[in-house]
Amino acid sequence: MYIATSDLSQMEQRYRAALINSLGGFKSVVMIGTADQEGHTNLAIFNSLFHIGANPPLCGLIFRPDSVERHTLTNIEQTGAYTVNHLNKEIYQQAHQTSARYPGAVSEFDATGLTPLWQPGYNAPFVAESHLRFYLELQEKIPLTINGTILVIGKITGIWLPDGAVQSDGFVDIEQAGSLTCSGLDSYHRTERIARLSYAKTDTKPYIIV
Amino acid sequence: MYIATSDLSQMEQRYRAALINSLGGFKSVVMIGTADQEGHTNLAIFNSLFHIGANPPLCGLIFRPDSVERHTLTNIEQTGAYTVNHLNKEIYQQAHQTSARYPGAVSEFDATGLTPLWQPGYNAPFVAESHLRFYLELQEKIPLTINGTILVIGKITGIWLPDGAVQSDGFVDIEQAGSLTCSGLDSYHRTERIARLSYAKTDTKPYIIV
Repeated sequence: MYIATSDLSQMEQRYRAALINSLGGFKSVVMIGTADQEGHTNLAIFNSLFHIGANPPLCGLIFRPDSVERHTLTNIEQTGAYTVNHLNKEIYQQAHQTSARYPGAVSEFDATGLTPLWQPGYNAPFVAESHLRFYLELQEKIPLTINGTILVIGKITGIWLPDGAVQSDGFVDIEQAGSLTCSGLDSYHRTERIARLSYAKTDTKPYIIV
Repeated sequence: MYIATSDLSQMEQRYRAALINSLGGFKSVVMIGTADQEGHTNLAIFNSLFHIGANPPLCGLIFRPDSVERHTLTNIEQTGAYTVNHLNKEIYQQAHQTSARYPGAVSEFDATGLTPLWQPGYNAPFVAESHLRFYLELQEKIPLTINGTILVIGKITGIWLPDGAVQSDGFVDIEQAGSLTCSGLDSYHRTERIARLSYAKTDTKPYIIV
């Protein structure tokens, strides 16, 4: 089946959003925890987190210009901090529910029953029910003028993982930790490892790392 | 287990790269097909593709400053075009092998046995063995000065999908199409859908879309 540019421009808006959001492949799906200067908490699901670099450890996140996610961005600007919390199958429905358009005064923690977890010295709440969590300090906010979205870059400055999740080479087994992936705007998936492959070299085929 | 900033800065470089690359969650994993002005093909695996917007349909891709992936970026700059090709379990080992540091004169199509597929009117090769493919035209190149990487933004201008993959609301079932996901730098996973959830509203819980 072939879809041309002219087909895309004629699609109904929600249909096109569902289609284009599906195309890029499976995505990271996480909850972003924030608080305002008074400590009022906010929690929002995002599927646009991506790796930018390991040294310094940097992640990017795309914010739409006009959405409920603005509470998240406003809080990040106030405190300079946010948390990333992986989903697992016990909490994915509550995580999805954080995307409802609650008023600014309502905390999505209260609305969904997820538990805010504060760590001493950190200025944003984690999700207690998440198995893999980390803390980011805001580094840069880059407006993408092409469509009005905003790229937010943060630096990882604290990581909480299940015991035993980090393997001898630094790889973290997020599948064993129960982390989920998503596709499109609303489809949640567990995973099943096929293999880890060895570092690719030009003179040999990759082998499976046991 | 808790990892602090001071622990991160003391880690051996490859260990830290494996750890930080795992943290963000499951990722899109695709092959980027390009050609230079003479039509010499190049193919490279990427795990940094992400959705930027649906209207216009935009994707982002992060390029490291000094890597084999530069052939890809040089080609994109020459022709203004690149293809995205999903992985499936029949070709993931060949896809991984494209990350080996082949010299510029060697096509990763030849080196790995994957088949270049040219479509009339399009200036970059697709991967014939991929089930889900699309074409991007370069829109913008944004240097991320914080770590020397480059954000490349492209616009989707042609899509090839398996028949029946697009559902009535525009959602594309990439799991049924056999697309894989990855974690870290080298771990490949198939997926198993838990559920699609309804659009979240403040006054109801989400329900599972059958």
